[in-house]
Parts: sequence; structure tokens; C-alpha cells
Amino acid sequence: MNDDSTGRIVAALRAWIATAPAGAQLPSSRALTAEHGASPLTVQRAVRVLAAEGLVESRPGVGTFVRARRAARAADLDWQTGALRARTGRLRGLSATQRTVSPDAVALHSGYPADDLLPERLVRAALLRASRTASATTRAPAAGLPELRQWFAGELARVAPGDVTPPTARDVVVLPGSQSGLSAIFRAAVGPGRPLVVESPTYWGAILAAAQAGVTLVPVPSGPSGPDPDDVARAFDETGARAFYAQPTYANPTGAQWSAELRARVLDVVRRHGAFLVEDDWAHDLAIDTDPRPLAAQDHDGHVIYLRSLTKSVSPALRVAALVARGPVRDRILADRAAESMYVSGLLQAAALDVVTQPAWQTHLRAVRPALRARRTALLDGLSAHAPTLKVEHVPAGGLSVWARLPDGADPVDVMLACEARGVIVAPGDEWFPAEPTGPYLRLSFCGPDVDRFDAAARVLGEVLGAGAGLPAAARP
Amino acid sequence: MNDDSTGRIVAALRAWIATAPAGAQLPSSRALTAEHGASPLTVQRAVRVLAAEGLVESRPGVGTFVRARRAARAADLDWQTGALRARTGRLRGLSATQRTVSPDAVALHSGYPADDLLPERLVRAALLRASRTASATTRAPAAGLPELRQWFAGELARVAPGDVTPPTARDVVVLPGSQSGLSAIFRAAVGPGRPLVVESPTYWGAILAAAQAGVTLVPVPSGPSGPDPDDVARAFDETGARAFYAQPTYANPTGAQWSAELRARVLDVVRRHGAFLVEDDWAHDLAIDTDPRPLAAQDHDGHVIYLRSLTKSVSPALRVAALVARGPVRDRILADRAAESMYVSGLLQAAALDVVTQPAWQTHLRAVRPALRARRTALLDGLSAHAPTLKVEHVPAGGLSVWARLPDGADPVDVMLACEARGVIVAPGDEWFPAEPTGPYLRLSFCGPDVDRFDAAARVLGEVLGAGAGLPAAARP
Repeated sequence: MNDDSTGRIVAALRAWIATAPAGAQLPSSRALTAEHGASPLTVQRAVRVLAAEGLVESRPGVGTFVRARRAARAADLDWQTGALRARTGRLRGLSATQRTVSPDAVALHSGYPADDLLPERLVRAALLRASRTASATTRAPAAGLPELRQWFAGELARVAPGDVTPPTARDVVVLPGSQSGLSAIFRAAVGPGRPLVVESPTYWGAILAAAQAGVTLVPVPSGPSGPDPDDVARAFDETGARAFYAQPTYANPTGAQWSAELRARVLDVVRRHGAFLVEDDWAHDLAIDTDPRPLAAQDHDGHVIYLRSLTKSVSPALRVAALVARGPVRDRILADRAAESMYVSGLLQAAALDVVTQPAWQTHLRAVRPALRARRTALLDGLSAHAPTLKVEHVPAGGLSVWARLPDGADPVDVMLACEARGVIVAPGDEWFPAEPTGPYLRLSFCGPDVDRFDAAARVLGEVLGAGAGLPAAARP
Repeated sequence: MNDDSTGRIVAALRAWIATAPAGAQLPSSRALTAEHGASPLTVQRAVRVLAAEGLVESRPGVGTFVRARRAARAADLDWQTGALRARTGRLRGLSATQRTVSPDAVALHSGYPADDLLPERLVRAALLRASRTASATTRAPAAGLPELRQWFAGELARVAPGDVTPPTARDVVVLPGSQSGLSAIFRAAVGPGRPLVVESPTYWGAILAAAQAGVTLVPVPSGPSGPDPDDVARAFDETGARAFYAQPTYANPTGAQWSAELRARVLDVVRRHGAFLVEDDWAHDLAIDTDPRPLAAQDHDGHVIYLRSLTKSVSPALRVAALVARGPVRDRILADRAAESMYVSGLLQAAALDVVTQPAWQTHLRAVRPALRARRTALLDGLSAHAPTLKVEHVPAGGLSVWARLPDGADPVDVMLACEARGVIVAPGDEWFPAEPTGPYLRLSFCGPDVDRFDAAARVLGEVLGAGAGLPAAARP
């Protein structure tokens, strides 16, 4: 399907229809084919889109005609206010990182890797193969395809020390993306009204899933070297929490990777409190300078609920992730997942398994490191050359972004708006704080498609900050 | 990928490994190729699966070896009991309809259509095309692909009467299956602890989603001609409910299709109570004798939240459904969906749109009617010939199953077990009742792959019932 030319013809015809009287006949397929330099198939597709919208109707053998427009009566929707009542959660809708922006803008806001960081040929080949198997027309098991579950378990088993019984396929639940895993874990293993310890700042998607599940967040400070285990212990003691959500490897947004000592100490705190560690290993395949060391590989007694996603490393269209959890908690989460959406498309699972079991997948992973490193360097070099007042306290050893502190008193949203007016899209840091932000931050991704324009974007940021954007009027230069 | 031969070799090697000492070398690729009559690629794939499981390790240029097994220490998971506390919901895990059974059994329990009822060639072709587009490697918008949303809106617009402003793409949210829609609607538009009116019996998946969302079910009796609108009104009045979940077209399990008069009366009750009707149009593409008439097409003021799925009519692997809802309720549901899983795979959306906009899709839909009719006839003929004590009160004009009443006093689970022992799988009706069942029922699908064996299956059912299975001992012949 040629999306672009179909879309172009649809847009042109929609404009034509807007001024045409009801019953007017559309130009013939032949005329449209000639006018738009498109194939008859593309023209047909465009007409079908318009027919599906109810704008035109085709009379076989006669032609296609503009449909009579209906009387536009304004809908009375006020009654819904009473039915819906006030919002109870704090679901604030889309994150700034999820915005779709003009292709002309330099996107430093998105957390999704650009095409050249994805194994595109592998993905397409795997999808083509999967399309030909039974997985294209059959229902997958609730917990996922057995071989994919084995692969996820094997990834942890590979790095487990000799004295830890590694997880097996039975401990794995395949998910349609790791966000679904967060929602299910927070609902099933924490529960509405109960406390969940989190780092601050932490991933906004986890804050959102927690709000949806109605759990109460208990933030502990965290930074470039991770949280203080004593803070975590105190949070458990004070609130009776039985779960701690964290990103020990290339945390979003701080980039922290926990040291071996910190991993051991946190695991010890979690064990002593009879609690779960929800380990979100989101950037497992996005290492740059170090290797990921999942805590889950060291866990023998079911304290770690491990989340790993392929969405960002294989393809955002292959929404496949998995959680690994042992014991009753796995059963409780699986029951929640089954109630939520029954099963994950077997086609996506088969394609994901195909990709990650190809030898070329390892080659791709090796190639991603220098590609991410080059992007990180380009962004950091640009920032230090042009935006000296922006402080990047920590160079992340993996992941897709840097966490940069604005001058004290600056308003990140004002900075975002000032940058956006000049074609550079950044994400204000406030979304990553479960409570009031402790400082003004931006999260700047280096995974977008515009690496050649990182320098120019940093220049814009520097100029915006130099002009005092985001600062109170009195503090501007 | 040849799944079968890979799986066969994996199984053979796994058995070999189970008795081999650690460090033992696997037979060479050449030997395995010869032994299994498989291609070198297939053998390689099998070895990769075993390596991913941690059973073997390959040393390039040397060979593949059995890995040392770890000390198997029993995990101590008892502590989770305290962390998880008692279950608060009533999530009972998998429905009997979702069981995977022996391929030798006759499956009358599943709600998923057999391959020959699916547009298999269209699905594969659409997936192949979509695999080549940008949708294979990009993130889709939170509410879904604009053209697919337009298609769903257009489906309702096509049948909307002239005085109703039809829904537009803006009112549509694409979902990864309609179960996700039920969960999101019950969470966002009803809410924990609040009442939701439902038919009884009703779809077990809706009962499950309601339990997960913590809403309180308010059942009203329903049967082959749907519910009594006065009962619905009374349920609203008594409980203050603001939502009614129903399947007005080929209801699962009763097969009811509401008359035009009933549709108008229920819509009137819902309007007068300032309430939502959650219309689950699950069988829209599975009509046999009549045409579906969605209530949503008659709704002007946002009272109907409409759910339509392509999972059962296009492919269970294309988990694509949509909800159509106007006004603030749509925004609230979309916020919940975004928190739950951000977006639906654009690849699946593009493939689904491709299928339903092909002219061959209409041809397929026309061919499904006689195919379903023949299956329904085969099952009903078998039942009336061999199982006279089983009463089918209503021949459904669409859908995939019949609802059959057992003799009074029979236990549906005992009947299921007795049938299963003889290779026939049926679903006990109790799962469809939100409270205690009002009678002993079976739900018998006619959409499974074994239409030639329906007669033999009915004979088994008849013999099982004739022998008094499921009846108290005193009542047996």
C-alpha cells in the first residue's frame, strides 16, 4: 500500500467534495489516475476510504457520487457530566513525550528510537515469515507462545550465577508492551489504596499506571547513582509497603545504573521486608558503555518481578514484552492480564521470536552501541558548546536520553514552549516526578531521527536559555 | 519457518539432553540433518532454541555441548502470601471456553471460529503488504490509525438514519481486542464500587472485566428475546446505576437479537436515566439469517458506547477492535487506555484496515452466512436426533453457538467431565451467570473445526445424558 499517494488523493478529493453539491459525480477513475499520477489501485483505495467515511457512494457501472449531507444537529452531551462524576484518578492523558510533531521540527522529546536504530530488515523478514504460518490466523495461549516464554526465561538464565535456580518458561507472561505489565503488576501485586515505593524522579509511564491502579506512591530520592538503600528501607518501614518499582539499569530519566553493591543492598532490603522489587529493565538492549546486570538473575525466592520489552529495540509495531515472576504473584498477575485482554497477538509474538533468535540480531545489538554513542556525543557536544547553563550531571552508560538541569528558577514548560516556537521539541522534566519536582529539568532524547541537527537544536536551546526564557522577568539578562 | 520440524527436533534433542552428562557434545549438524530429514537451517533453529533455554551452549568452530545443570534449590515463596494478602477481586482465571484441548477431541466449547470461517488469504496478503510499509517499524497514535478510525465510524454512519448525525473518526478509539474495551469502559465510565446493569445470562468476559474493575453487577433477566425494559428501568431506579452492558445482536449466550421496538424502548430507558448503554456488537460480522442493527446508529446524544471487534471475523491474530463513543466519556476512556497500554500495534491496524477495505471482504462476509448456517444445522440436527433431553429454546439468527438447557437437576460441570472423557468438549453454562445460575445450561459452539463430527458429538452428549450423567444418583435411569 502506498500510504502517501492514497492520502494525497483522499485529501484532494475531500477538498473537492467540501464544495460540491450532494449528488455530484466524482471525476472518473481514469481522470483521477491521470491527474494524480497514481495507479488505478491507489485511486480505488482513496475512493474506498471516502466511501467508508460516508462522503461518497459508488454505484457500480455508473460512477461515484457525493452523498447528501445530513442535518447537523448539535449533540447534547451535558448529561454525561452527571453520569461520569468527577475524575477519581489523576490520569492526565498523553505525556509530552508521546506527542506527534511536525516532521520539520527537531524531536528531542520522544522515547522511541529512530528507524536506523531498529533492525528493520530483520523485522520485515520476520513479519513476512510469520504471515505465512498458523500464527497469522490462530489464537495464542493466555501466557504467550511457549518458545517465546522460553527465550525470555533463557535471557535471564544465561546471566544467572551458578547457585541460583534460573527462571523457566513457566515463570514468564508475554505482554502487549511493558506498560500493560506495569498496569497489571500495580493492580494485582499492589492494589488500590496500598503503597508502592518508587524512585523520584522515575518513569512517567509508571506514575501513570500507578494512578490508574489507584495505588499510593511513596517516593524516595534517586539520582545518577540510584537510590540510597536506607531511604528504601525507611519507606518500607514507615508505610508498610510491600513493593518497590525501580529501573536499576539506565534509569529513565536519570540514566543511573546501580552498582553491584547497590544491587545487593537493595535486594537485601527488599527481602528483609518481605517485599517485591518490580525491576523495569526497559533499556536492556540499549546499552552503550556497560552491560546490563538484571537483579532478577540473582533472585531465587520470587522477590523480583522482572519486566523486559522488545518494543524499543525490535520495533514499536511489535508490541511484545514479558514479565518474569515466580510463585503466586505470577498467577495473580496472569489472571489480571487475562481479564484485561485475554492474550497477545500470536503473529507479533512469532515475529518477535524470529527476530531475536536470528544470529543477525546479535550483530544488530553490537551495532546499536556505537550508533547510540555517536548520538549521545553529538547531543552532549552541542549542549556544552551552545547551552552552558544547562547542566548534564551524568553521562548515561545506556538508554536513549540525558537528564539536564535548567538554571534555578526556570520553568521547564516555558522553556519547552520557547524552543517549540523555534522548531525544537523538548520534554519538560516535571512529568517524571511523582510529587512536586525538586528542580527544573528537561529530558533530552538522542534517539530521534535528526542527529545531524542536534548541534543546531542545542544552539536554539542555548539561545532560548540565554534570553532568559523560563525565568521570572526580574531574573532575565 | 517450519514450526513442526523445528519443534520435533527440539523435542528429540531435549529428551537426549535429559539423559546426557554435562559437557556431552551434541551430534553434529550434519548428523542431525540426516537423522531428522530436515534442512540445516531447521537444525540450526532447533539448536538456537535449546541454547536460549540454557540447555546447551555452542562453541563456534568446536561444537555444541550440554550445559552443566545448576544445583536445584527449592525456592521459598511462602513470604508472598503476606505480601499479596487475600484476593480482593473474583478473577477466576481462564474461562472453560479458552481451554486448549487435544486435537483429537471435538471442540464444542471454543468461541473462536475455525480457519475456514476466516478470510485467511486476505489476512495473509494484508499482513505481507503491511510488513512492507512504515507501519512495521513505527509507533501508532494513541487513539489508532486515522483511516481505520474512519472506517469504524463509517460502518455506523452507513446505517444511521437521516436525522442522526453519524459518528466521526474522532469518536473512535482503536483497541487491542474488545476485552480491553470492556475493561477500560468499566474502569473509566463506571468505576470501582459503582453499579453496572447487565443481562443474565451474559458474556463471561464482561463479568470478568467487571470483577477486575471492581464494579458491582446488577443483573436483569434476559432470554431469547432480550431483557424486559421495565426490568432495566427498575434496576436503574433501585441502584442509581448509570450504565447498562448488553449484547443486543446475537447475544452470547442466548443468541437473542432485540426487536426494533425493544431497541427503541431500551434506548429510551437509558436516555431517561441519564445513563450509558454499552453495546457490545461482538457478532456484527457473524450474521446468519438477519442483519445486525446497532443501537449506536440511532444514538445522537452520546448514550451508546459501542464496541465492535474484528478478532473473530478477520483473525484472532489481528487483535483489533474499536469503541465508538461521543463526548467526555470518550476522552475518559482514552485516558484509561493510554495508561493501560499507550497504543495498539500499527502493523495490526494497517493489516486489519487492508482486509476490510478489500472488495473480497464483502464476498467473504456473504460466504460466511451459509457456512455458519450449515454448521448450525448440523449441530441442531445432531442434538435433536441424539440428545432429546437437551432443550435448545432458541435458534440464533447469528453468532457462533447455541444455548442448551440440561434436564432439571443436572450438573453442567459433571456433564462436561463425562463428555470430555469421551472426547467431546462442551462449556458449562454457569460462567455466563453473574449470580447463581437459574438453570443448568451448556453453551455449544458450532464454529469449531469438526463440523463432520458434530453428529457423533451429539450422540456422545445424548448417551452421556441418557446415562444420567450430571444428575443426582437417585435420579439416574
